[in-house]
Amino acid sequence: MSEQTPEIRGFRFAGFAAGIKKSGLPDLALAVADRPVSCAALFTENLVQAAPLKIARERVAAGLLQAVLVNSGNANACTGKPGLEAAHGASSAVAEALGIDAGLLVPASTGVIGQVLPADKVVRAAKPLVSALGARNASDFAQAIMTTDQGPKLALERLEVGGQEVRVLGIAKGAGMIHPRMATTLAFVFTDAALPPERLQRALRSATDESFNIATVDGETSTNDMILALASGGAGAPELIDGTDAYSGFVAALTRVLRSLAEQIVADGEGAEHVAEVIVTGTAHDADARTIARRVATSLLVKTAMHGKDPNWGRILCAAGVAGVPFDPDVARIAIDDVEIVRDGIGLGAEAEQRAARIMQTPRYAIRVSLGAGPGRASYLTCDIGHRYIDVNAGYRS
Amino acid sequence: MSEQTPEIRGFRFAGFAAGIKKSGLPDLALAVADRPVSCAALFTENLVQAAPLKIARERVAAGLLQAVLVNSGNANACTGKPGLEAAHGASSAVAEALGIDAGLLVPASTGVIGQVLPADKVVRAAKPLVSALGARNASDFAQAIMTTDQGPKLALERLEVGGQEVRVLGIAKGAGMIHPRMATTLAFVFTDAALPPERLQRALRSATDESFNIATVDGETSTNDMILALASGGAGAPELIDGTDAYSGFVAALTRVLRSLAEQIVADGEGAEHVAEVIVTGTAHDADARTIARRVATSLLVKTAMHGKDPNWGRILCAAGVAGVPFDPDVARIAIDDVEIVRDGIGLGAEAEQRAARIMQTPRYAIRVSLGAGPGRASYLTCDIGHRYIDVNAGYRS
Repeated sequence: MSEQTPEIRGFRFAGFAAGIKKSGLPDLALAVADRPVSCAALFTENLVQAAPLKIARERVAAGLLQAVLVNSGNANACTGKPGLEAAHGASSAVAEALGIDAGLLVPASTGVIGQVLPADKVVRAAKPLVSALGARNASDFAQAIMTTDQGPKLALERLEVGGQEVRVLGIAKGAGMIHPRMATTLAFVFTDAALPPERLQRALRSATDESFNIATVDGETSTNDMILALASGGAGAPELIDGTDAYSGFVAALTRVLRSLAEQIVADGEGAEHVAEVIVTGTAHDADARTIARRVATSLLVKTAMHGKDPNWGRILCAAGVAGVPFDPDVARIAIDDVEIVRDGIGLGAEAEQRAARIMQTPRYAIRVSLGAGPGRASYLTCDIGHRYIDVNAGYRS
Repeated sequence: MSEQTPEIRGFRFAGFAAGIKKSGLPDLALAVADRPVSCAALFTENLVQAAPLKIARERVAAGLLQAVLVNSGNANACTGKPGLEAAHGASSAVAEALGIDAGLLVPASTGVIGQVLPADKVVRAAKPLVSALGARNASDFAQAIMTTDQGPKLALERLEVGGQEVRVLGIAKGAGMIHPRMATTLAFVFTDAALPPERLQRALRSATDESFNIATVDGETSTNDMILALASGGAGAPELIDGTDAYSGFVAALTRVLRSLAEQIVADGEGAEHVAEVIVTGTAHDADARTIARRVATSLLVKTAMHGKDPNWGRILCAAGVAGVPFDPDVARIAIDDVEIVRDGIGLGAEAEQRAARIMQTPRYAIRVSLGAGPGRASYLTCDIGHRYIDVNAGYRS
């Protein structure tokens, strides 16, 4: 997306360098609605929850929010009472600078675990941050929430509702600690559609299940993950009603936005060079296919084979075999895109593998695993793991 | 252990280079008992099972075996009917050279998946392999079963039963694809103790649960894993009877042997420089502690932090938090050996972490996670993951 994103009517955005990151790069992001708006959210399932998440949970529950404040460079997780106080102090200062009730602002943090957020830096940054707000500054917001990301992640969809154009903008951060347990990263959705919190929550849940919840980088689940959606109604379109084409269209657009963000995250998987969609078919149920697809997508040996551009189907079949779902290996078929390399559980030889290896040199391909004649089907996004993942994660704190 | 291992009375061993490995290194191992002896085995839980494993299952079921034939360099997995025929052909040729019934010989294979075992090479090697048999050649056997191993893996224990010395020798291979689902590697136990198959099976199951089943390198489970035990009775000691001190002593010795092999395997985890024993305490039950210990031990972020010698306790707590076992993060304590770095869920600061980081430079240490006042306790062996793992596994087939 371009530097300047189109307006999402009813929202303004800002990014700012508050000095939380040692690098001096932007580390404070703010999004604010013109008035309190509908909100919905999904939170990490990790038992260990960062201080800002505890605050966010309470505030989202009311269904109405006006602002989101995100810092990168510090997760403010496992920081006890001082961490909670810092999160409150930081968000109150920004709420005050905005002239809104602190209960209408949701804080979020991402970065290193175990260090208390330096609230004083946020307090000092509050006024210039608010001054930087602009309707077309969403990419500043996206820049400021980055940690190990190689670049900002945005996705935009437009749809028509009652003759009006409605926009759905998604912004996410994430490269490591990506594995599906609800929201597996920090992601924010801003839309000028009109719909009440419960309906927005259902739409968000459905779209997340088909995007973030089927993406993996390293099987990890963070203490700070949250996906938050705000709907301003600023497009002036009629309210979205369950069961209508307009509502389905909105859920589909939201799903595409989140799907795009999930793909961007997996593609940026801390050194990843290849993204694969693992597509499993032929099981009795979709759930079985998803279990197997997840196991294959998470296998370190599959991911290193991807890195080596090696159609090592033995590792794929081996990973499928320990997913805990019964199937007959003797009917298994495996293909890289449309090049079949295994039929009836047996490899088809060097020539097929050479063709598959050529496909595996490209940035994105499908690993297709067919395990029978059942109607079950599921897919899962994964990436290769190479040396940069080791470098990033063996040296992240130093 | 020294080049020449002490005799395990009643057994002879050999290793031979049959040309299955491109490198020309030894790739064929044979162990043979003077007569049919008690046997027991555990097999991989992977749904995908290599051809030799299918044969081994049938033959072990009878409770009596006389020989084990292992090849490295080729797993003979996912090779269908031709693979099964090759496994039969190879083992029949060696049985014939030994002058024993083929049903008394168990084949095992390890190496690349998806290529049919070149049975002709085994047939040609059968006679010289049998000629190489010797009572003190167990390390030749150990050499010949290696794949990506940096060195052979043997462990020996001695105990006294009825005034006689009884010996328990374990030999294993494995560095990658190591994760606990029963036997997670190829491992062989030769003992001159006397006990019937059912009792040997119980002892093997118990010892495996406390060794191989609590060790992980990369969360993978192979198609070829097997642990096989043969008991010759050659020590001339009385038969081991359930409930006696002698039997308990034997199980303890067997556990130490398998534990040593499991530690050797984890330490050789394809580039591993550090082995950690993750010890979880304070849960309601041992099973809860084990679930959490496994999750921490398997976490890629914990393993890369180990590689970076970084006491990144946030990752440890974060991994514990997604194990699916409820606990109160606010009472969590974490220590590296005896250096506490987290108390009541909060980090104890830079000085403690620096001391912990120094311990993490050593080859072996404990990661202690205390999660409450419950009696539950479990441990799990793991290793760091670094660049060599990527090199070995991204390039393994090429």
